Amino acid sequence: MSETILTRAEFAKRIVKAQKAMEKTDLDALLVFSTESEPAGVRYFSDYWPSFETAAVLIPASGKPALLIGPESLTYASSRSRIKKIIQLMDFRESSQPDYPGSKLPKWKDVLSSFKVKKLGIVGFHMFPYTMMTAVAEALGGMKNVSNADEVLRPVYMQKSPLELDCLRRAAKISEYGFKAILEKIRPGMTEAALCGIATEAMLAHGAEATGYPVWCCSGPNSDQAISRPSLRKVKKGEIIHFSIGAKVEGYSASIGRPVVLGECPSQIRKFLQVGLDAHNLTFDLMRAGVIASSVAGKVHEYIRNQGYGDAILYGPAHGCGQMECEYPFLETSSEYTLEENMTFMADMFLHRGGMGFRWEDGLIVKNGPAERLSKFGCRINILK
Amino acid sequence: MSETILTRAEFAKRIVKAQKAMEKTDLDALLVFSTESEPAGVRYFSDYWPSFETAAVLIPASGKPALLIGPESLTYASSRSRIKKIIQLMDFRESSQPDYPGSKLPKWKDVLSSFKVKKLGIVGFHMFPYTMMTAVAEALGGMKNVSNADEVLRPVYMQKSPLELDCLRRAAKISEYGFKAILEKIRPGMTEAALCGIATEAMLAHGAEATGYPVWCCSGPNSDQAISRPSLRKVKKGEIIHFSIGAKVEGYSASIGRPVVLGECPSQIRKFLQVGLDAHNLTFDLMRAGVIASSVAGKVHEYIRNQGYGDAILYGPAHGCGQMECEYPFLETSSEYTLEENMTFMADMFLHRGGMGFRWEDGLIVKNGPAERLSKFGCRINILK
Repeated sequence: MSETILTRAEFAKRIVKAQKAMEKTDLDALLVFSTESEPAGVRYFSDYWPSFETAAVLIPASGKPALLIGPESLTYASSRSRIKKIIQLMDFRESSQPDYPGSKLPKWKDVLSSFKVKKLGIVGFHMFPYTMMTAVAEALGGMKNVSNADEVLRPVYMQKSPLELDCLRRAAKISEYGFKAILEKIRPGMTEAALCGIATEAMLAHGAEATGYPVWCCSGPNSDQAISRPSLRKVKKGEIIHFSIGAKVEGYSASIGRPVVLGECPSQIRKFLQVGLDAHNLTFDLMRAGVIASSVAGKVHEYIRNQGYGDAILYGPAHGCGQMECEYPFLETSSEYTLEENMTFMADMFLHRGGMGFRWEDGLIVKNGPAERLSKFGCRINILK
Repeated sequence: MSETILTRAEFAKRIVKAQKAMEKTDLDALLVFSTESEPAGVRYFSDYWPSFETAAVLIPASGKPALLIGPESLTYASSRSRIKKIIQLMDFRESSQPDYPGSKLPKWKDVLSSFKVKKLGIVGFHMFPYTMMTAVAEALGGMKNVSNADEVLRPVYMQKSPLELDCLRRAAKISEYGFKAILEKIRPGMTEAALCGIATEAMLAHGAEATGYPVWCCSGPNSDQAISRPSLRKVKKGEIIHFSIGAKVEGYSASIGRPVVLGECPSQIRKFLQVGLDAHNLTFDLMRAGVIASSVAGKVHEYIRNQGYGDAILYGPAHGCGQMECEYPFLETSSEYTLEENMTFMADMFLHRGGMGFRWEDGLIVKNGPAERLSKFGCRINILK
């Protein structure tokens, strides 16, 4: 499982795609910003993902890009980056703002003028720090020359290449090993955190480079948390224990969401889980190329309402996926776009009511006809006696 | 190991300390911002740490604080927050900017005026997103009413309470289980990532709530990376394999850094490791209350130069620690502050030369007299036959 999926040609094509997307704009360059927990953009173009520090990729309208990193990451970035030119800037240092006595790094003005940038588009606009924006704007003569370019790259990110699909397929497969380890090892009295450790160890042993996101288990009264982190609560019999487990493969993040009950399962919990599972499977049936996204959300929510669980709906029933486990576009009752072949989603059925909840989640690739489902392992009512 | 260290009174005291620190300023409130990978400020005051979304704590000059979160984290935040008042704002949503059809959340203007804020200080200033700053400044009548308040809270964060020291002690102890599992299970042919999984599983099984940071192993040609992430490279005999392993306990992050060699250890590697270990131990000897920080860095670097390895120094030999594994202040040859009792540091000896490197790292608490060393386990030349 350890040979690399993504090729040098794949990364070269991504730069070309970004430059083609830029042709419809008046921009001289894109600056794609990423952080430790939001690595997607920089990883997509460079294969590098920051830790502790932040980073960006500067893509000129024509010519070669540069990877911009902080003062401490040069050897790490050099070993990973598919972009040859690497430039260190102080602004990408850790948030604790270390001193680097004697260090002489270039300024934004030097970098932007060496790329002849007059108009710059920022990707990752809503994460981009104020202080960096101020420095960039000053180097370019004001905010009039800086703009939000998230929309420019969205179509590029949304059209997954065959190799990207392979990364997502492998990530989903490895995630199954995480849940398999849970099914084998879970016992009452283990902590939510310890269970996450078991799933993580199994995924990393089977070829994941990392988890796709901070994986979690939430149990009993914690089970109604849509977003969560594992606590030191010990899991018990007869309660919902649900897992969000995902592996990262070459930057691509999978997730599988599964509820588990140990011992006897009260009948009202069993019924609640089954409604969720049926709704989850319905999402897969409905996700087809040519379909308006909102109609999928409408029909799935209608099904849940008809079963008497309308109040348990929080959002959803799907969201885009790729490098981030959750990325644009979302699939809501307000989503007016049309599903296209090779768009990738997580079908994500989170329901909660009365202080208890669960998530069913699996990746899919939109096709003409039935979607390709990326994982099925353990996607059943798991009552472990 | 699972009873909680931090009390309700501890969190109440932190708000009082922040309000006391604010007295010397003209600020009506502090806004302490955090993200998934930079959770420290929000965790410090609220015990909540965001995942996927971002968050902030609003601390008025007097009166009760509020925790500000995104649209999806309410049940999770409610289960964790030590601050009762929780307000959801759209600006703290995920970076993919999901729609929330029908959602009606308050605006910055509503929130800031309900707290009677006219002058606001931002903590986490260098991470604070441009778009959020723009919205906050607009609500307050311009950037003239918003300022960088990182310096206001630095003394508060730097003075560790007895309970904070206990969290760091426990985190260090649990980190040792991570390295113990490595010593027991490491074999040639395992991947760096798989080894990180083993350490992670062991720490979570022994009471860690999470890893303190994205732990890593880097081996052979990767070993010269000061900041790194594990790759799928398989570790081999006769090369440096080094580990940065750290547990998180109630928000506090430990780290232990250890190099390992499998099989025969070439003599020049052994000598290089020994110089690093001796310099690391020297750091502990020198770190005492009343000492000027730069003098420690100067003496440790002088020792390394005298052994003929001056070119192998990258930084250091220590940095602050607490909620973040690496936080203010750094200890460099330019550091003019005086060490005080109960300041906490990671002694962090990273050396690299000729494409090979390693890190020795352990936490310490500054004392009058010898420092309290938070971990020693496996802090020797580990050559595993």
